[in-house]
Amino acid sequence: MKSAGVVVIGNEVLSGKVEEENARFLIRELRELGVLLSRMTFIRDEVEAIAQEVRAQSDAFDVVFTTGGVGSTHDDVTLPAIAKAFDVPLQVHPVLRQKITAHYGVAPSEALLRMATVPSTAQLVGEETLLFPLVQVRNVYVLPGVPKFMRAKFAVLRSFLQDRPFAMRQVFLNVREDKVAELLADVAAVDPGLEVGSYPSFDEGEFSLKVTLESKDPELVERSVEKLLDAMDERWIVRVV
Amino acid sequence: MKSAGVVVIGNEVLSGKVEEENARFLIRELRELGVLLSRMTFIRDEVEAIAQEVRAQSDAFDVVFTTGGVGSTHDDVTLPAIAKAFDVPLQVHPVLRQKITAHYGVAPSEALLRMATVPSTAQLVGEETLLFPLVQVRNVYVLPGVPKFMRAKFAVLRSFLQDRPFAMRQVFLNVREDKVAELLADVAAVDPGLEVGSYPSFDEGEFSLKVTLESKDPELVERSVEKLLDAMDERWIVRVV
Repeated sequence: MKSAGVVVIGNEVLSGKVEEENARFLIRELRELGVLLSRMTFIRDEVEAIAQEVRAQSDAFDVVFTTGGVGSTHDDVTLPAIAKAFDVPLQVHPVLRQKITAHYGVAPSEALLRMATVPSTAQLVGEETLLFPLVQVRNVYVLPGVPKFMRAKFAVLRSFLQDRPFAMRQVFLNVREDKVAELLADVAAVDPGLEVGSYPSFDEGEFSLKVTLESKDPELVERSVEKLLDAMDERWIVRVV
Repeated sequence: MKSAGVVVIGNEVLSGKVEEENARFLIRELRELGVLLSRMTFIRDEVEAIAQEVRAQSDAFDVVFTTGGVGSTHDDVTLPAIAKAFDVPLQVHPVLRQKITAHYGVAPSEALLRMATVPSTAQLVGEETLLFPLVQVRNVYVLPGVPKFMRAKFAVLRSFLQDRPFAMRQVFLNVREDKVAELLADVAAVDPGLEVGSYPSFDEGEFSLKVTLESKDPELVERSVEKLLDAMDERWIVRVV
């Protein structure tokens, strides 16, 4: 199973000046692709903090995505931070310089060149299809903060990311969570590949507890749902989907 | 200036099974209170990962909030993880045990006792006003994942958290970001207490760039806005708020 981490970069996200959209998009996409998102960190535009987080996630997970901090101004420090994370120098990438020159129709200013200045070990992905290729450093994919550009870049990674899908069943119950805690723990303990989640609801709707059973192995999920339902007072069961 | 970190705990958030509401609430509240939110991490229900993140944030920031992972089931591991973060044992807190007994009307089961089992150095906050008091360990405040309970607990901390408000001005421009990059960097460099953000917009609305100037010092913000506007081609200026 592929694991992933995300580093969302930008003071504006943590101050609430902009409503973050990329986090929700990546959560949904990675889930659909069958990739386990293990950690997502929102962090300010600070080189040292970004470098540390990128390095830690790169070591811990199969793939890492950063979003934000790749424009042309003083607060765009993601690429320098990734260079620092892996202790490699920055350099102007000739292909990126050429793409910028072609797009803007002039020799790039110092500010524009920031966007072509990448860690020396960077590789480009999607040169054929993207206006500006995606920058990859080791297992780290550098995505922009502007949602529509972020989505376009993420799209070129989809086929590479595709993994076996997650199987999930949901059991809606009308019972207090603590009364089934032991039973849920028993079911969860059967197989480390099974994940059992328990989510009480206090809005006085038709159910008071949602239990989820998930795995990459659909048969394990089915067996576990059966085990759970068999062991339960059937008056508690509202619905199983 | 008070700094804060947030640790959002729960597999369900990272898998998109539930739509996360607490992050947005805390971002908005902390901003309104004048507290600098420096980092927010979404993390799975794993003791080791939670312990590491809580410890790192506790060392780095003035206050830390955790949300989630405090129910009665096997996947509720926040309190054991915080005990591990600070290397202290867990113990049943007599006041919490008594509150649970009073609420449920029975001697608590093992599952219910999980919710009263806290790090030995924990203190309780809001005993007078809350049904279940808030657990505090050092500078870490343990909030539940259920939004309405989370908000009720956060409310008792408001007066303690209140800090000098942030002052902000926004300058909307019609100019390409790279053309003002140098100017923005100059303005930002005047004072470390000033934060200058630059956010291009590509939706072809009335402006193409939003510049924000922020500080705890409102006069510094005003002086910086003037400096910025004076140095700028006035045809670029759409509006200043």
